[in-house]
Amino acid sequence: MSRENAWCPIELIIKCGMLLTMVSEVPILRDVDIHISNGTIISIEPRSHDGCIYTQAVELLDASNCLVMPGLVNAHTHAAMTMFRGLADDLPLNKWLSEKIFPAEAEHVCPENVYWASLLAFAEMIASGTTCFSDGYFYQDKTMEAASKIGIRGVVAQGVIDFPAPGVPDSTRNLEEAREFIDRWKGVTSLLTPSLFCHSPVTCSDKTLKGAMEICLSRDVPMQIHLSETIEEVETILSQKGRRPAYYLDDLEILNERLIAVHCVHLNQDEIELVKERDAKVVHCPESNMKLATGICPVSHMLKMGIEVGLGTDGCASNNDMDMFAEMDIGAKLSKVFNNDPTALSAKEILTIATTMGARVLGLGDEIGTIEPGKRADVIVLDLNNPRLQPVYDPISTVVYSANGGDVRDVIIDGRIVMRERRLITIDLEEVMWEVRRIAEKIMEKKTTPHLPS
Amino acid sequence: MSRENAWCPIELIIKCGMLLTMVSEVPILRDVDIHISNGTIISIEPRSHDGCIYTQAVELLDASNCLVMPGLVNAHTHAAMTMFRGLADDLPLNKWLSEKIFPAEAEHVCPENVYWASLLAFAEMIASGTTCFSDGYFYQDKTMEAASKIGIRGVVAQGVIDFPAPGVPDSTRNLEEAREFIDRWKGVTSLLTPSLFCHSPVTCSDKTLKGAMEICLSRDVPMQIHLSETIEEVETILSQKGRRPAYYLDDLEILNERLIAVHCVHLNQDEIELVKERDAKVVHCPESNMKLATGICPVSHMLKMGIEVGLGTDGCASNNDMDMFAEMDIGAKLSKVFNNDPTALSAKEILTIATTMGARVLGLGDEIGTIEPGKRADVIVLDLNNPRLQPVYDPISTVVYSANGGDVRDVIIDGRIVMRERRLITIDLEEVMWEVRRIAEKIMEKKTTPHLPS
Repeated sequence: MSRENAWCPIELIIKCGMLLTMVSEVPILRDVDIHISNGTIISIEPRSHDGCIYTQAVELLDASNCLVMPGLVNAHTHAAMTMFRGLADDLPLNKWLSEKIFPAEAEHVCPENVYWASLLAFAEMIASGTTCFSDGYFYQDKTMEAASKIGIRGVVAQGVIDFPAPGVPDSTRNLEEAREFIDRWKGVTSLLTPSLFCHSPVTCSDKTLKGAMEICLSRDVPMQIHLSETIEEVETILSQKGRRPAYYLDDLEILNERLIAVHCVHLNQDEIELVKERDAKVVHCPESNMKLATGICPVSHMLKMGIEVGLGTDGCASNNDMDMFAEMDIGAKLSKVFNNDPTALSAKEILTIATTMGARVLGLGDEIGTIEPGKRADVIVLDLNNPRLQPVYDPISTVVYSANGGDVRDVIIDGRIVMRERRLITIDLEEVMWEVRRIAEKIMEKKTTPHLPS
Repeated sequence: MSRENAWCPIELIIKCGMLLTMVSEVPILRDVDIHISNGTIISIEPRSHDGCIYTQAVELLDASNCLVMPGLVNAHTHAAMTMFRGLADDLPLNKWLSEKIFPAEAEHVCPENVYWASLLAFAEMIASGTTCFSDGYFYQDKTMEAASKIGIRGVVAQGVIDFPAPGVPDSTRNLEEAREFIDRWKGVTSLLTPSLFCHSPVTCSDKTLKGAMEICLSRDVPMQIHLSETIEEVETILSQKGRRPAYYLDDLEILNERLIAVHCVHLNQDEIELVKERDAKVVHCPESNMKLATGICPVSHMLKMGIEVGLGTDGCASNNDMDMFAEMDIGAKLSKVFNNDPTALSAKEILTIATTMGARVLGLGDEIGTIEPGKRADVIVLDLNNPRLQPVYDPISTVVYSANGGDVRDVIIDGRIVMRERRLITIDLEEVMWEVRRIAEKIMEKKTTPHLPS
């Protein structure tokens, strides 16, 4: 890879000890420099020893004793739900949702809380090597603001549900709100894509689902939906519509290449084939599916079928963290034991899902997901100088089976260093944690003190 | 809890912001001091504000902004296998074992390598909050030396197998070697218990198994064994002995309260009842069982039956780390999805398994596993000032579902600070990592260069 764009001012050079490009035909590179200009990767070159070319560089990041790799893509989360992290665990699914999460959301999800809790989520993401996320929630203007503030890349989807929801008390206006949100944010910043998130086929009507996809197609943005997460959902759709969920979505003409179907735990073989045929995207959330005991997505089978799959942590109320390294580790191991096959979902496959393929799922495959000239510079640096990470026989094995988010030393998003030596650059982390603790204290007060009607 | 032993010289005081004692009837304590003398917890008292009593203290550890809890007990590992971490992943079980691990062990397991690789394992354990381990391997004098050097507590078992093994080329001497090992180390140090580890009912004969238990009972030490890890093992024992594995062990009179049976993935209900009746102990290794796709131990069912269960990471060739926080998280979630029940294996249950119950499994229940007067001081300090760990509604949920080993700030074993502010005190970590990298380089050379017979 020669440096063709030598005329371009070099703004950042990353000196890499070991570089995992995730470009399939490129092996692991050693002792190379990544040259980045205006957020774009210009070239990857053998280490310059005379130091001459470094004189043009505005900034130099020395990762010569580290492993450098693409930032991770968290393809499904509800960022603001960090405010409920650990509020309710180990409960039956309906009790957890109906008695804990929904009431807490009804009472505490407001613009200010969404801002601070999302900012905490993004801080956690960056501190654990995630450089791009896909979010679905409410008051998403505030999520956009928080993401802009910290400088993370993402797809931010306005939640749509046919019930009164935070910020959308009149559910007949839910699509209108979503459309306005998309129009307000489309093209505003190159890092953030607005999108629309229908909660599920059970909680959104035919009309809502069809209308949502029409908006997304007309605005050229992805549409997200929880699909086939629980057996109960499958049974409800079957009894109400006489069809299994994927067929039902296909009848509505929303099962297409812009649909991001999250969970897909209970798709049968026919549905999986239909998802493939329609080129719809799937997001696997193994930790959330395990914790809520909803089931196991047959993700290694889907990959063999040629379906594009991303990896997501889901929200912090059902995980309870956003460490994509842990998600990769658990995801790979879960597929093995589920398939009774230790070769299922290899380290390389799950790392591809969490980077390159995840980027494609979000419609960002041309921009991110690998480290190669022409891509935007979303790059993370792992410090391997840790007893847990030694020795290194195969860097991909180290990344998937041994590393965790705390091993990430530096994070670059769109060419900008947002974490250096584990210090977040763009926000006051103490302030963010203080604000979310304050929110949590109010939630606890409401929980323990009888609430008087106003 | 008053300070009855006020006459005793106070050697260490830990100022705790939040204290998770793991004593079942004691709630979480806030703003208390743990007083430790000669390695024993003397008292837990409300925070002293005048500072007077601190004058007697030799050492003060300020954890007033932290969560303090008992050190974790890793109830099954093969420490020296850190030298093979990431050497061979995502392979069929037989290929992994017969073509990769066994040949690598035959060639590279020598006293020096066991010393350095075990020291790396103990460094990793301490750095991730494990204060006590149970190990089974070869050249265990070296494992004892490494454990003594770093100052960790543990049960160190000499491996017994009816094949030529590292350090025991003549397998007819395997029990004699084990007995000599136990006699050499019994009572030498209060932190380290020698033990005996029979590889499995398939790789040890009737005579070996019976002889091993006789040695253990006569020396009052536990005996460890891999039991019912794979379907193939069950089928082999069934066809050779006409009995399922637990019944076979019971016929040999080795299924008793001193037996630590590791894995127990494929025990049927009758076998589980038998294990309970005989008061044998079980160790659950969820990550290893998942990665090797051997199956899922019905651990929440065993707990309901009243069986004492510990939690283990297994060796680094099949995990590939020793982070007990990750093991708790995955273990709890695996039980939920396996049982189709999100209430299965709660955060509190898995934390009990990883501390109090794990200590009892190893025969150390009177010494460690909780923080209360009279117990030895194996204590870890978690720094919660991390976006991943905020907010904290329930400290047990935070510990199990959100924390990882990297959140451990300080580690005290037997009253001695062995890690402070994440710096290991008792070893030169850089030296240890350098030595293991050197071993790995030799393993890689042998892997890629044809080996000439000598």
